[in-house]
Amino acid sequence: MKRRSFMVAVGASPLLAAMPTVTNAKAEFRWKMVTAWPKNFPGLGTNANLLAQMINTMSGGRIKIKVYGAKELVPAFEVFDAVSKGVAELGHSGAYYWKGKSATTQFFSAVPFGLTAQEMNSWLYYGGGMELWRELYQPFGIIPAATGNSGVQMAGWFNREINSFEDLSGLKMRIPGLGGEVLRRAGGTTVNIPGGELFTALQTGTLDATEWVGPYNDLAFGLHKVAKYYYYPGWHEPGSTMECLINEEAFNSLPKDLQEIVLVACKAANLDMLSEYTARNNQALKTLVDKHGVKVMALPDDVLKKLLVLSDDVVAELADSDAMARRVYDSVMGFKEQVSAWHELSERAFLRARAL
Amino acid sequence: MKRRSFMVAVGASPLLAAMPTVTNAKAEFRWKMVTAWPKNFPGLGTNANLLAQMINTMSGGRIKIKVYGAKELVPAFEVFDAVSKGVAELGHSGAYYWKGKSATTQFFSAVPFGLTAQEMNSWLYYGGGMELWRELYQPFGIIPAATGNSGVQMAGWFNREINSFEDLSGLKMRIPGLGGEVLRRAGGTTVNIPGGELFTALQTGTLDATEWVGPYNDLAFGLHKVAKYYYYPGWHEPGSTMECLINEEAFNSLPKDLQEIVLVACKAANLDMLSEYTARNNQALKTLVDKHGVKVMALPDDVLKKLLVLSDDVVAELADSDAMARRVYDSVMGFKEQVSAWHELSERAFLRARAL
Repeated sequence: MKRRSFMVAVGASPLLAAMPTVTNAKAEFRWKMVTAWPKNFPGLGTNANLLAQMINTMSGGRIKIKVYGAKELVPAFEVFDAVSKGVAELGHSGAYYWKGKSATTQFFSAVPFGLTAQEMNSWLYYGGGMELWRELYQPFGIIPAATGNSGVQMAGWFNREINSFEDLSGLKMRIPGLGGEVLRRAGGTTVNIPGGELFTALQTGTLDATEWVGPYNDLAFGLHKVAKYYYYPGWHEPGSTMECLINEEAFNSLPKDLQEIVLVACKAANLDMLSEYTARNNQALKTLVDKHGVKVMALPDDVLKKLLVLSDDVVAELADSDAMARRVYDSVMGFKEQVSAWHELSERAFLRARAL
Repeated sequence: MKRRSFMVAVGASPLLAAMPTVTNAKAEFRWKMVTAWPKNFPGLGTNANLLAQMINTMSGGRIKIKVYGAKELVPAFEVFDAVSKGVAELGHSGAYYWKGKSATTQFFSAVPFGLTAQEMNSWLYYGGGMELWRELYQPFGIIPAATGNSGVQMAGWFNREINSFEDLSGLKMRIPGLGGEVLRRAGGTTVNIPGGELFTALQTGTLDATEWVGPYNDLAFGLHKVAKYYYYPGWHEPGSTMECLINEEAFNSLPKDLQEIVLVACKAANLDMLSEYTARNNQALKTLVDKHGVKVMALPDDVLKKLLVLSDDVVAELADSDAMARRVYDSVMGFKEQVSAWHELSERAFLRARAL
């Protein structure tokens, strides 16, 4: 058959016109994913890469996502706006970064003395959390999805021993968000310093303490070289959720199979990040203690009790921000009450029994 | 264009021959999923449905999975063989059911005083567990994937109070697997009774006690009507993993995009089941206590300590089964040692602090 008649044949057929062609079966959707992390940042940036890769592969290349580290396309704190405006179709970040848009966003990342990773996922998927989160981002043209969790973090690196609640007084600490507000009420001073400058700030005494993430990320940062004590538990971030931001218009332009692929990939990536942090934190903790002789210290019960009371106040005040904050607060706190009762008998009681 | 010349044109073009046609874009792969659960069984059967639905939707209908409850196509305990022989392409079950094939399978479901859900996933995805599991099933032509987790279970329903280790002596209990072996060494008698007959067996005294799952499934079974005490924690099943069995030949016949869809769907379903159990167990526990006045009791520390020692023996003996069992044991126990150290400072310390 001659080339000319073949082209005519293809062009003339309504059936063929409806068929996926070789051309549009490849990269129908070239998407950008902007992230709040340095490119390939362990745990966070690598999760963004994994998410993109899963979507690319599952779509047979019909979606092609290019991942951008912070500042490559937009700065970290402009990820939300970039997705909202359609500059990028996807974003990878943490909801507490957007408290300037709405204080309520903080409920979807981490709340002091709030939910652990397992509890957060349960609230989101089966406790009404996801519906509220979608409602919150809807005015911005963004569909949120949970795409990762750090697990319980560490309380942080300290150059001052914390033996009583009074020792928090005057403490200069890098601790952002709701945890920072709690520390201020405990008499501390919070200092806002970018990650890259923490090492020097601890070394020179500009900071007495800093929280970061957990052993895996902390070891890579070398914070053990400039701080005396490594305190636990991370009362301020018991299970920080990472989010995938999806531009609503871009999402709606996808056929149903690709929409499902994007959402299911987020859910798989969500489990993957927690699994990775759990494994890598183990290894890094062992290295910190065995190789670097890090002194791991527990915050005294008296200190934790008082921080818990202050945290309850701070979170309750957050609920007064607006009607939406109130609804989210009621939902998450109702869930927390019940899940705490269950996890006292299950997760906590088992971990205790195993250590007897 | 006339129909005849259109058909000729399509048939004659090598380019068109390589294109996906409308026909083979629909249900290229009609697959069966056999399960070890009654159809739609809450948590387990519903997870099988969800998994099938995610794969169907993400594949745009190119894969169409029909889910069969236990006995609909094959009995529960023939799921493994059915997938191995290709009678069904997929199976949904728990690895400890196949200890007759290899004692080592038990490491991939639940081990007394072993890993929690979060730890199990971390070992599987980032600790070498998945590679060992694949190696174990490879001779059977099956590719395994984790597809769900119950979380920490309850110790069970008892009509005899357990105040000391001696109270386990002579206890007639339904508790299968490794946990059952531990109970026998503690002086108890294990009775093998199908789920459907537990109610009557407790009522008539054929059984003094039974374990089942947790509040969600137990409430539906009505076990609180025939047992006096509800004991925790579920030392024998701290995070039971459910598996998707994939016939290797069927998997290899899939193009790369569909292979990824099957595996990613399993990972998403894995997180989904744990999230569902966590949420539903909360609600059911509240109902059991508030509405039915169930007496929730802690196993005494002395009892747990002795069960822990016996469990260590039983699991260590399992490692002597063969070379593969030894390798899996070394891997999972090495991981457990490190993850326990980390979770003492993180998950457990946080849950403790929250309850201060």
